[in-house]
Amino acid sequence: MTDPTRTPPTASLEGIAEFDFGRAARRGYPEAVLCEGKTMEHLVAIAREVGAHQHSNGHEPLGTILFTRASTDQAQAVCRELPGAAHDPVARMVAWPGPVPEPSGGTVLVLCAGTADIPVAREAWLTARHLGRPAELVVDVGVAGLHRVLARVDQIAAASAIVVVAGMDGALASVVAGLASAPVVGVPTSVGYGAALDGLAPLLSMLNACAPGVAVVNIDNGYGAGHLAAQIAATG
Amino acid sequence: MTDPTRTPPTASLEGIAEFDFGRAARRGYPEAVLCEGKTMEHLVAIAREVGAHQHSNGHEPLGTILFTRASTDQAQAVCRELPGAAHDPVARMVAWPGPVPEPSGGTVLVLCAGTADIPVAREAWLTARHLGRPAELVVDVGVAGLHRVLARVDQIAAASAIVVVAGMDGALASVVAGLASAPVVGVPTSVGYGAALDGLAPLLSMLNACAPGVAVVNIDNGYGAGHLAAQIAATG
Amino acid sequence: MTDPTRTPPTASLEGIAEFDFGRAARRGYPEAVLCEGKTMEHLVAIAREVGAHQHSNGHEPLGTILFTRASTDQAQAVCRELPGAAHDPVARMVAWPGPVPEPSGGTVLVLCAGTADIPVAREAWLTARHLGRPAELVVDVGVAGLHRVLARVDQIAAASAIVVVAGMDGALASVVAGLASAPVVGVPTSVGYGAALDGLAPLLSMLNACAPGVAVVNIDNGYGAGHLAAQIAATG
Amino acid sequence: MTDPTRTPPTASLEGIAEFDFGRAARRGYPEAVLCEGKTMEHLVAIAREVGAHQHSNGHEPLGTILFTRASTDQAQAVCRELPGAAHDPVARMVAWPGPVPEPSGGTVLVLCAGTADIPVAREAWLTARHLGRPAELVVDVGVAGLHRVLARVDQIAAASAIVVVAGMDGALASVVAGLASAPVVGVPTSVGYGAALDGLAPLLSMLNACAPGVAVVNIDNGYGAGHLAAQIAATG
Amino acid sequence: MTDPTRTPPTASLEGIAEFDFGRAARRGYPEAVLCEGKTMEHLVAIAREVGAHQHSNGHEPLGTILFTRASTDQAQAVCRELPGAAHDPVARMVAWPGPVPEPSGGTVLVLCAGTADIPVAREAWLTARHLGRPAELVVDVGVAGLHRVLARVDQIAAASAIVVVAGMDGALASVVAGLASAPVVGVPTSVGYGAALDGLAPLLSMLNACAPGVAVVNIDNGYGAGHLAAQIAATG
Amino acid sequence: MTDPTRTPPTASLEGIAEFDFGRAARRGYPEAVLCEGKTMEHLVAIAREVGAHQHSNGHEPLGTILFTRASTDQAQAVCRELPGAAHDPVARMVAWPGPVPEPSGGTVLVLCAGTADIPVAREAWLTARHLGRPAELVVDVGVAGLHRVLARVDQIAAASAIVVVAGMDGALASVVAGLASAPVVGVPTSVGYGAALDGLAPLLSMLNACAPGVAVVNIDNGYGAGHLAAQIAATG
Amino acid sequence: MTDPTRTPPTASLEGIAEFDFGRAARRGYPEAVLCEGKTMEHLVAIAREVGAHQHSNGHEPLGTILFTRASTDQAQAVCRELPGAAHDPVARMVAWPGPVPEPSGGTVLVLCAGTADIPVAREAWLTARHLGRPAELVVDVGVAGLHRVLARVDQIAAASAIVVVAGMDGALASVVAGLASAPVVGVPTSVGYGAALDGLAPLLSMLNACAPGVAVVNIDNGYGAGHLAAQIAATG
Amino acid sequence: MTDPTRTPPTASLEGIAEFDFGRAARRGYPEAVLCEGKTMEHLVAIAREVGAHQHSNGHEPLGTILFTRASTDQAQAVCRELPGAAHDPVARMVAWPGPVPEPSGGTVLVLCAGTADIPVAREAWLTARHLGRPAELVVDVGVAGLHRVLARVDQIAAASAIVVVAGMDGALASVVAGLASAPVVGVPTSVGYGAALDGLAPLLSMLNACAPGVAVVNIDNGYGAGHLAAQIAATG
Repeated sequence: MTDPTRTPPTASLEGIAEFDFGRAARRGYPEAVLCEGKTMEHLVAIAREVGAHQHSNGHEPLGTILFTRASTDQAQAVCRELPGAAHDPVARMVAWPGPVPEPSGGTVLVLCAGTADIPVAREAWLTARHLGRPAELVVDVGVAGLHRVLARVDQIAAASAIVVVAGMDGALASVVAGLASAPVVGVPTSVGYGAALDGLAPLLSMLNACAPGVAVVNIDNGYGAGHLAAQIAATG
Repeated sequence: MTDPTRTPPTASLEGIAEFDFGRAARRGYPEAVLCEGKTMEHLVAIAREVGAHQHSNGHEPLGTILFTRASTDQAQAVCRELPGAAHDPVARMVAWPGPVPEPSGGTVLVLCAGTADIPVAREAWLTARHLGRPAELVVDVGVAGLHRVLARVDQIAAASAIVVVAGMDGALASVVAGLASAPVVGVPTSVGYGAALDGLAPLLSMLNACAPGVAVVNIDNGYGAGHLAAQIAATG
Repeated sequence: MTDPTRTPPTASLEGIAEFDFGRAARRGYPEAVLCEGKTMEHLVAIAREVGAHQHSNGHEPLGTILFTRASTDQAQAVCRELPGAAHDPVARMVAWPGPVPEPSGGTVLVLCAGTADIPVAREAWLTARHLGRPAELVVDVGVAGLHRVLARVDQIAAASAIVVVAGMDGALASVVAGLASAPVVGVPTSVGYGAALDGLAPLLSMLNACAPGVAVVNIDNGYGAGHLAAQIAATG
Repeated sequence: MTDPTRTPPTASLEGIAEFDFGRAARRGYPEAVLCEGKTMEHLVAIAREVGAHQHSNGHEPLGTILFTRASTDQAQAVCRELPGAAHDPVARMVAWPGPVPEPSGGTVLVLCAGTADIPVAREAWLTARHLGRPAELVVDVGVAGLHRVLARVDQIAAASAIVVVAGMDGALASVVAGLASAPVVGVPTSVGYGAALDGLAPLLSMLNACAPGVAVVNIDNGYGAGHLAAQIAATG
Repeated sequence: MTDPTRTPPTASLEGIAEFDFGRAARRGYPEAVLCEGKTMEHLVAIAREVGAHQHSNGHEPLGTILFTRASTDQAQAVCRELPGAAHDPVARMVAWPGPVPEPSGGTVLVLCAGTADIPVAREAWLTARHLGRPAELVVDVGVAGLHRVLARVDQIAAASAIVVVAGMDGALASVVAGLASAPVVGVPTSVGYGAALDGLAPLLSMLNACAPGVAVVNIDNGYGAGHLAAQIAATG
Repeated sequence: MTDPTRTPPTASLEGIAEFDFGRAARRGYPEAVLCEGKTMEHLVAIAREVGAHQHSNGHEPLGTILFTRASTDQAQAVCRELPGAAHDPVARMVAWPGPVPEPSGGTVLVLCAGTADIPVAREAWLTARHLGRPAELVVDVGVAGLHRVLARVDQIAAASAIVVVAGMDGALASVVAGLASAPVVGVPTSVGYGAALDGLAPLLSMLNACAPGVAVVNIDNGYGAGHLAAQIAATG
Repeated sequence: MTDPTRTPPTASLEGIAEFDFGRAARRGYPEAVLCEGKTMEHLVAIAREVGAHQHSNGHEPLGTILFTRASTDQAQAVCRELPGAAHDPVARMVAWPGPVPEPSGGTVLVLCAGTADIPVAREAWLTARHLGRPAELVVDVGVAGLHRVLARVDQIAAASAIVVVAGMDGALASVVAGLASAPVVGVPTSVGYGAALDGLAPLLSMLNACAPGVAVVNIDNGYGAGHLAAQIAATG
Repeated sequence: MTDPTRTPPTASLEGIAEFDFGRAARRGYPEAVLCEGKTMEHLVAIAREVGAHQHSNGHEPLGTILFTRASTDQAQAVCRELPGAAHDPVARMVAWPGPVPEPSGGTVLVLCAGTADIPVAREAWLTARHLGRPAELVVDVGVAGLHRVLARVDQIAAASAIVVVAGMDGALASVVAGLASAPVVGVPTSVGYGAALDGLAPLLSMLNACAPGVAVVNIDNGYGAGHLAAQIAATG
């Protein structure tokens, strides 16, 4: 295989960033850009470098570059640098190039517990699609009305990877994992208040799922869940 | 009984929500809508669906639908969709239909420790009334001036369910439970600062009440306490 | 009514305890004795005083006195002082007098998620029975195998008060509350490890139950839950 | 498909447990028994029922039943009830039947950071093998001596699912995920002291892995990680 | 005044301790010895030095030296080195010389909420007496039976400093402070379980007391509270 | 004495507040009004009632009423209702009547560690003065430059009560208590960032002061510290 | 040596601050001014005093005074008082005098994991340079692309002190310390979200670095890290 | 320089450990062995390999290998494998070879606040000496008696690196850093109880030291502090 420690086709963004252009070759999926916390100047420089890299000769294709947790201003600035990018304001995500690739692998199923979880669920769903998987999104099937998730047992059985997005008690992850043969990636959300502790309550709940087959990513990390589900379903 | 897992009269809000219209039939109390965290677009679609459902033929009455933790903007938007709704800005609640039903069951008594606890206490009091109970509200009877709560021992003795709303030390819940034969639902509030830890201090205090007969709901969750008290007092 | 602040029929256990013999008259349920943390000498003195009080003239009957969280040594010592007491070693509880009273009021249903939750569930179930309610106990119906709780929907519908005992993700409380019209008292347990944080995970989960109608007591507090359920079901 | 909510082939362990014998049919993997927290009497009853079920007519084969986090006494008691069971004292696991099945699917690679992580790593490795995957175990490749993990890049590239077991800083998960195309299941361990906070430090570290493709299970949960890796690698 | 930074009459316990023999002259109260965490060898050396210092010529009297949180073994070893010392096993304290001095100043009143709080309450009460104050101890007056503390309003009004010792909800501190003109020193105890979090719950509760006039010391720190109360009542 | 539970000269602020006008008679110090968290409407009503009560016949004088943690808007509104009130914008406090009373009792010394602690320190200093004590304020004497606090040893020795205000490491409280014979009231502040955890770091530090004689109030609670110091120094 | 406790050349900023002008003589490095939390009025008074002190006769030179965590408004106000000051808006730092001194001692190497860590990294780098060290800054070398830090092994080997700035998993500190002979000062940053807990995750991770030779400063404390590195490299 | 990622002279301890024998060449200090958490069998195998490696031909000398946090049994087992090793039971450390090397570099000064901190302080002091530095140990100089640390200002001024070991309030680190020009490595200890939170209180206190020049290692990590101090003083 290629030696991951020796051949870094790293871009020069001196003093700003060292974009890991070799990541797609090394890991199969390109580096994404977390917009949150970056200055506009730094973000624009990175987007520009991404565009320049793609258009220069001799490079392998990078695949789709995702810009995550982008404010409206950040998203617009990225789109200016990268014509053809697609912006989903609910998911706060920009993808470049915009069109989703032809899907391959097994299906990724994203389930969310409530309406307020949609932004994170949508981030997971879009990520899986941009990384090349067929993906489905089902919303508002929290366990307070159990018939809603039970109506999806066939969909759950057919999926190669399942993402469960839930805040508050995070109970949906346990319930789904008890019904599914595919792995469940739990995404706790910061939806809720008080003792939800900005998502710590569903995080702990999912880490202690009484059903096996649940692994957890960071609070509100739809991107990470979608990425993981895409990896899991790659051979599904 | 009806089979709760098989006959979901669920509305179609494709991609937004799956309102649990069967909940009143199943549980005796209809689903409420937590406004906080929902986009305006999603909230309006839900309110519209609620209205449409009520007016279509052949449905059982839903009962009063409560919209909780509504910002002023959210409340106004809901009221536009649901003429006849009542908005209480202090409690941040919209109820539709607006008038409280004829009360039945035992009395719900809501006590709060300080003036700053009024919004949460009022949310509990209104919830209990909209769910059909006679309810009373007493404010600012914290234990720093013990005579204030001691002056209400008769009212405490007469209640079928008691809600105690308190921030800071949450001590009122223990004191009231030591005087009452009815169950006490404690609602810790985020009133206070510093080591009040946004309500964790009274939450822990109430969970460790030295008097038995106290159960606790989430910080600032007046709706949940009012709902529970209404259930408890249903047969009171 | 009697004035709770003025007529304390308090026993003399000078320097050890001030047993609240008036509690049954005031609140309808007598004081219980938390054994944990008491020295053997102090506990024996209290048990002796309880016995002496009951046998002296002119007192109203106390009702059943419960000794909770008793080690084997403590339980045996209490039983020596109070002949006729009943000891349940799994629930770590001693009741005196031993026989459960004739049940009245509605039914208390205690559900627990796993086998390891049985001690706490049993403490709740025994408490409700000793305080005078008919009570049922159902074990190991956690949500990992959802058919187990769904097989009890009729039992759930018939109960006047429900106690849900669960560790780890605590998800059973939300699921049951979504099915029940009766109030649910959640008891998080310290069953689990790691991020279960000695019961904090299910405690937070239950406090954030996505279904309304759940109130929570302290971790492993089967006594408190059984007491509360007995109060709720008193008029059921 | 079979209806998971309607046909529970549940054993009768009245008042002790309700073993989910249908889980293998429903999810593809049988229920495991967490020994920790169970009384010896309860555990023995469950083991006996498992044996009886397997030998009765007309049942589908259960697959291998794992007893996890078993003390020496518990393990010996289980082995007495289930002749032919295999006990791994380091992993604190009993498997019945003892022999690992013929492996199928992709390879599960278990990496651990230090010698003290071996029990948890071995639990993950054994779980994956008993659930039917080829699996490899590599120990003591923490990032303090980076050459150790870099020497395994080919092994990492060949795996279908990777389990990273680490306490303290948990940094190995990020480093491995940055090199791998397969999903990484992180298992934080309670190895460490002081600010390791019984495993919370590596738990948080792994949840915040700067490389995508990491999902996390509970602290010390080798079983859960092995199960998840087996699911992921099923089609690898 | 004496210069506290320049004239340290410090004993030589080379490599073990540097006993602050000047503390009584500087602060009015001598150094105490926290036994917990010290090796037997180190503790014995310190006790011996204390004895030697007292008997040597030319020294001012040290006053009573308290050895706190002493295990039985530690207490016995200290008593062997310091004949005439008094050991209170409930308070885990050794005082040398044993007899309490003639009291002066105002009265210190120590109130505790429950029987299990007695060891800490007794530590506070003994400390205040050994530091020279008249002191009273009242036990088991928790707020679950409010008449118990209300029966002591005259005692509360007469005290110059009040120590309130309580675990669980810590509510007694607020109630007493609302009745008293003297300062209240709150001592949260580790009495309780689960969400009492080893005393953090009453600690937070007391820090957020809704009545002014409460200051708090460390969990279970009866010594600190007694010391502080002795200082407060010095001029009472 | 007066019976604190029976003669509540409570104002009628129906549904808003129940001002404890008897507190000065009962405790020696009148009730203060925490402005934070109160609506403007509620706050104004309370201020108006305070003014009306003072001017009506037959009432005992209330003493100075303090309005704490008042925003600029709140302070101005209070001043409009209560002519003659004094507003200190740094301390965010309004006092009515404005002039400090003639001082009596011992001296209260307020020391703060840094410039950013001044608002809290000033709140303590003003409170002590309005409650009738002579008080001194010394700023920016943190332990990073130890000579600053050592230059005040005479002032420290002369005080009857000492308030130490510090954020970050809170170390000043221990250092001062090691030098003082008077009690030290520690006020942790939210000054700092990151691991200061909004004041939890100095709170914990002060609770664990290695010198005896430190008691602690809530983070940023200058009012509580000044009140306590005034009580302590009353007889100084 | 000079006696640090006796000769405080302290400026008079009566009631505002007590600037420690002797600190450079005592510790080798002058006092810095943390702007955050100071009112504009107080900050300006301090800046003015610093300027006045420097220009008055007979004083030793103070060295460069750093104003840290300065908002834009604060920085501009300081620059108005101290002509010749240099403002770095990214690092939120003002230095006076502006030019960095001639470097001496060993090299300080500052490495940061991501682009969003640049403000803190730059604060460390500037601090080291203003305190007199040669310093280098390398950005975006997080462990997700390990080749980036491995490309700097020579730079790492040549440094006398290394500062590692990282949020999220903080893993870079362990990796670098495993490669370096120089001490590593870890600076966790608040970069990240959810379970990053505002920097607590990398803080804990760095405190538990599996490689020795890492010490940690407060979250986002670039100044402290740069100061410490300058001290370490002073003799390098 | 040598390439740290390519030439791992790693011992074969197949399935147990991968001892990093190249660490001394790479970092200047050899790998240490944390005994805690290792099985006796694994520890003995590692000790044996260390001995074998040293005695085989052609290896560079390893330097002194330290075995830290060793129980008495573990220490004895290591000493059996490595004749000539030195065991310090107070510091729970084994060093092999036993004699400390000839000291070089600047002096490391270890200060501890109390007698109970001695084990950790001694671990730091021994580590520094075994890694080749001259080192001094001063005990029981906590800030409650400030004269004790002020008596050491000359020793503090002469040190090249200072280790401050303290539990409880951790205040000594700030005080020393305010006096010293050398870097201070703070070691919080688990000495204390209650709100000391097993060392979190002094950890937070030291992280927020108001004096610059303090960096912190894990709670009770005397080894880490001694190692870091040895690195810092290497060129002192």
